[in-house]
Amino acid sequence: MSCEELVSALPEGRVITEPATMESYRWDRAYDPDAGTPLAVVRAESTSDVQTVVRYAAERGIAVVPRGAGSGLSGGSTAVEGGIVLSMERMREITVDPLTRTAVVQPGAFNSEVKAAAAEHGLWYPPDPSSYDFCSIGGNIATNAGGLCCVKYGVTTDYVLGLNVVLADGRSVALGGPRLKDVAGLDLTKLFIGSEGTLGVVTEITLRLIPAQRPPTTLVATFKSLDASTEAILAISSSMRPSMLEFMDRPTINAVEDATRMGLDRDAAAMLVVQSDEPAEFAAKEIAQIEALCQEHQADEVFSTTDPDEGEAFVVARRMAIPAVEQKGSLLLEDVGVPLPKLGDLVRGIEQIAQRRDIVIAVIAHAGDGNTHPLLVFDPADLDQKERAHIAYGEVMDLAVELGGTITGEHGVGRLKRPWLAGYIGEDALDLNHRIKMALDPQNVLNPGAVLDPAVLKS
Amino acid sequence: MSCEELVSALPEGRVITEPATMESYRWDRAYDPDAGTPLAVVRAESTSDVQTVVRYAAERGIAVVPRGAGSGLSGGSTAVEGGIVLSMERMREITVDPLTRTAVVQPGAFNSEVKAAAAEHGLWYPPDPSSYDFCSIGGNIATNAGGLCCVKYGVTTDYVLGLNVVLADGRSVALGGPRLKDVAGLDLTKLFIGSEGTLGVVTEITLRLIPAQRPPTTLVATFKSLDASTEAILAISSSMRPSMLEFMDRPTINAVEDATRMGLDRDAAAMLVVQSDEPAEFAAKEIAQIEALCQEHQADEVFSTTDPDEGEAFVVARRMAIPAVEQKGSLLLEDVGVPLPKLGDLVRGIEQIAQRRDIVIAVIAHAGDGNTHPLLVFDPADLDQKERAHIAYGEVMDLAVELGGTITGEHGVGRLKRPWLAGYIGEDALDLNHRIKMALDPQNVLNPGAVLDPAVLKS
Ligand SMILES: Cc1cc2nc3c(=O)[nH]c(=O)nc-3n(C[C@H](O)[C@H](O)[C@H](O)COP(=O)(O)OP(=O)(O)OC[C@H]3O[C@@H](n4cnc5c(N)ncnc54)[C@H](O)[C@@H]3O)c2cc1C
Ligand SMILES: Cc1cc2nc3c(=O)[nH]c(=O)nc-3n(C[C@H](O)[C@H](O)[C@H](O)COP(=O)(O)OP(=O)(O)OC[C@H]3O[C@@H](n4cnc5c(N)ncnc54)[C@H](O)[C@@H]3O)c2cc1C
Repeated sequence: MSCEELVSALPEGRVITEPATMESYRWDRAYDPDAGTPLAVVRAESTSDVQTVVRYAAERGIAVVPRGAGSGLSGGSTAVEGGIVLSMERMREITVDPLTRTAVVQPGAFNSEVKAAAAEHGLWYPPDPSSYDFCSIGGNIATNAGGLCCVKYGVTTDYVLGLNVVLADGRSVALGGPRLKDVAGLDLTKLFIGSEGTLGVVTEITLRLIPAQRPPTTLVATFKSLDASTEAILAISSSMRPSMLEFMDRPTINAVEDATRMGLDRDAAAMLVVQSDEPAEFAAKEIAQIEALCQEHQADEVFSTTDPDEGEAFVVARRMAIPAVEQKGSLLLEDVGVPLPKLGDLVRGIEQIAQRRDIVIAVIAHAGDGNTHPLLVFDPADLDQKERAHIAYGEVMDLAVELGGTITGEHGVGRLKRPWLAGYIGEDALDLNHRIKMALDPQNVLNPGAVLDPAVLKS
Repeated sequence: MSCEELVSALPEGRVITEPATMESYRWDRAYDPDAGTPLAVVRAESTSDVQTVVRYAAERGIAVVPRGAGSGLSGGSTAVEGGIVLSMERMREITVDPLTRTAVVQPGAFNSEVKAAAAEHGLWYPPDPSSYDFCSIGGNIATNAGGLCCVKYGVTTDYVLGLNVVLADGRSVALGGPRLKDVAGLDLTKLFIGSEGTLGVVTEITLRLIPAQRPPTTLVATFKSLDASTEAILAISSSMRPSMLEFMDRPTINAVEDATRMGLDRDAAAMLVVQSDEPAEFAAKEIAQIEALCQEHQADEVFSTTDPDEGEAFVVARRMAIPAVEQKGSLLLEDVGVPLPKLGDLVRGIEQIAQRRDIVIAVIAHAGDGNTHPLLVFDPADLDQKERAHIAYGEVMDLAVELGGTITGEHGVGRLKRPWLAGYIGEDALDLNHRIKMALDPQNVLNPGAVLDPAVLKS
C-alpha cells in the first residue's frame, strides 16, 4: 500500500517511509524478534496530526502503534507489519502552573524533562522509572509506570488529573482536568492510564505536582544471606514508610561493580538501598530504626549518609543495574510482583529456576512494593540457552502467580506477556477487557496485538 | 409482580417485602421526591446472595439498586419503582493484615469501622468523608468518596488495591488484589471505583493501609472578608501541604454555633480549620507559616493548638456543619469544585446567586481541594422558595463549569445531577460512558437512572 494520501493529509515533514530510518522505530527495549515492518512512521506535532493519522488508519483498517520513546520492556510499541508507527517524540511542550501545582504536558516530553520543569518552581513530579531520562511521559501514562519512590509516593496514575485522548475513530476527547477532585461520570482518565495504547492515543496530560522532596538520608545494607535480606525488607516495610526500598542480588551487584568500580561488596548475597525523606530529625530516627532492623536480620555491613550526593551514587548504581547486566548478554526482562510476605519465596524460587535452567538470572527489585525485575541473561548465539531462558521467563511468571503475585507490576503486558494474561487475571476479567476494547475500538485499530489477542477479539 | 421465587432462591431472612419496612430503603440523604416503591429489599449476606439477586433481576429485566448505608447526597441509591433494593448492610466483615498493611473488607462495613479496625494495628485508612460513622465502605468505593484529609492523602481510589464485583449477568469477578503494583490488563479496579453501582455490585474490597497519622497541630483562623479568606487558602495551598484545609462561611458558622454553643465568632465572614501532621518541630514551622499567611491576608483571629482534643473540637464543628444547617430547613446539597485560583470567584458567585434567588446558601468547603458544598436552604412548605432553590442548584453548577470546575467533586452524579452531566463532560466523554455501560450491562439492570439516562442508553 502506498501512503501518498497520508503524506498529503498531514503537514510537511511528518511522515517517514525511508526503510533505514524506519528501522529504529520497529522495536522497543524488548527487541521482539517478530517486529513487523511498518508502512510508515509518523512523527506527530499536534493532536490534529494524531487525529488525521488515526482517521486515515481507521478508514483503511490499518494498525496504529502509538510510540513514546521506545524504552518499553514488553513489546508494547513493537511495529506491526504494514501498520503505522505514531511517534510522539516531537510533542514535548511542558507548562507548569505553580499556583495550582499542576503541569500540562505533551506526551513526548521525557519524564526527566517534566521533573526538571517542575523543579524550576520548587515542585516535584514523583514517579521515577529508572528509565526517567529516556522514557516519555506519554509512555509512562500508557503503562502506568512505577519507579523507585512509588513505595511512598505511588505510581503514575496517582498524579494524573486529566488527559486528552484521540479515540479509535479519530475523535479527540478531554477527560478530567485541573480539578483536584472530580467524580462526574465513570473514571475514564484512570481507565486510559495503563491501557498501553489500546484504547486511545494520549496527546496531552494534566499532572498533579507536589512540593519538592526533602533531601533524603540514604542507608545501604549488605547481607550474606538472601533470605535474611528479604526478611529485613518485610520487617522494614511492615513497620515504617521509607521513601525508597530497593534490592539488588549478587549477580546484579557484580554487574554494576564491573561497570562502575565503585567498590560494592561482590560477595554480598544482597544489597538494599533505603531512603527516608522525612524532616531531618525524624529521618535520623527512621534510618536508625531501619539500621536496627537490618542488624536484627544479620546484615553484614550497614552504612548511612545524609549527604544527598553520596546517597545518590548508590541510587545511580541501582538505576544502572539493567544496562550493567545487559553488558553480560541479551536480556529477558521480568517484572513480577508478589505480596511482600512472599518476596522471599519468590526470590528463592527464581534462584531455583536459574539453577534448573542453567542460566543467570540477576534480580533487582522495587522491594518495598514487592515488585521484582528478574533479568534473564542469555547468549543469543547459543540457541539452546536462549530457549532455556524463554522457558524460564514463563516459569518465573507462573511462580509469581502461584505465590499470589502478578505477571507485571509496572512494565505492562505488551506483546511479550500476552500469553500469560488470561492465566493470571482469569477468563472473566479478560472478558471485561475484551468488552471494553470492543466498545471503544471495535475495529482494533489501536495497537493490535498488544495486551489482547486480536484473534479472540474478533470472535 | 410477586417475588416468591426470589424469596425461595435465597437463604431465609434475606428478603423484605413489607411496605412499612421497605419505606426506609427508598431514599438516600438526597430525599428524592420521585423515589419509586421497590418490589423488594434484599439484605445480602454473601457474594452468592448478591449473584442470586442480580441473576433473578437480569432474567426478568428488573432493576437492581445497590445500597450501602444510604448516606449518599445525589440520589444514587434512590429506589426504582418495581426494582430491587440490594442492601449490603449485613456484609460487614473486616480483616486486617498488619504484615502487608492491607485490609479485606465487606462493603457494608462503615468507614469508621474500617478506620477502627486498622487503628487496632497502629494503621490508618485515611479517606474520611464527614459521614464516616454512618456511610459504608462500599458506598465510598462506589462514589470514590473524599473527605477532609484528601488534600494531603488523596481520595478513596488511592487506597483500593482490589475489588470483588458481581457483574450485571451475575458473574462474580475478582479484580486486582493485595499486590501493591499491578498493571496486567486494563485498570478495571479503578473503573469500578466511582461507578455508582452502575457497572457492578462490589462485594469485597482490598484496601491499602498506611502507618497511623501523627497527632495533628490545628490552626483556626477567622476572616472579616470572604475574599481575604479565599486568597489565604490559595496562598497556603500553593506553598505547602497541610493535612487538612477546611472552610466555613458565615451562615455555616452561625448554624454550627446555634447547635454547639462552642463560642465561634458569629460575625466572621469565614473560618478556616487547618492541620499539619508533620513531625512536631516541622509541624510547628508549617503552622507558623500558615499563621503568617493568614495574617498577611487580614485574618481577624488566629488560634493554634497542639492538643489533639482541642483541635478535634473544631474538626467536629466542621464535620457537623451539614446536620447543623439542616436544622434551618430542607437542604439541596451541592458539591461543586473548581481549580483553586477560581475558589474566590466561585464563593462570590454563589453569594450572588443566593441574593438573586433570595435564599440562604451556606458554604462549607474542602478548601484545599477547591471542593465546595454550598448548602441551599429552603422551607419545603414554601413552594416558591423551593422552586427558587432548585433553580439556584442548577445555577451553582453552571457557575462552577463556567469557572473550569466540576459539577461534583466527591458525592457523585446519582439521579439528582444527571441532567447536568452532559453539559459538563461533553458529548464525546458521555458517549464513552454509554459505550462502557452498554458493554458491561447491556440490559441496564444495575442502578438504572443513576448517572446515565436510560432513554439515551436504549437508543
Ligand atoms: C533501563 C530501563 C529501566 C526501566 N525502569 C523502569 C522502572 O523503574 N519503572 C517502570 O515502570 N518502567 C521502567 N522501564 C520501562 C519503560 O521505560 C516504561 O515502561 C516507560 O513508561 C515507557 O515509556 P516510553 O515513552 O519509552 O514508551 P514506549 O516504549 O514507546 O511505549 C510503551 C507503551 O505505551 C504506549 N504509548 C506510548 N506513548 C503513548 C501515547 N502517547 N498514547 C498512547 N499510548 C502510548 C505504546 O503503544 C506502548 O504500548 C525501564 C526501561 C528500561 C530500558
Ligand atoms: C452529613 C453528611 C456528610 C457527608 N460528607 C461527605 C464527605 O465529606 N465526602 C464525601 O465524599 N461524601 C460525603 N457524604 C456523602 C456520602 O456519605 C458518601 O457519598 C458515601 O460514600 C455514601 O456511602 P453509603 O454507604 O451511604 O452509600 P449509599 O448512599 O447507600 O450509596 C451511594 C452510591 O453507591 C452505590 N453503592 C453503595 N454500595 C454499593 C456496593 N456495595 N456496590 C455497588 N454500588 C454501591 C449506590 O448504588 C449509590 O449509587 C456526606 C453525607 C452526609 C449525609
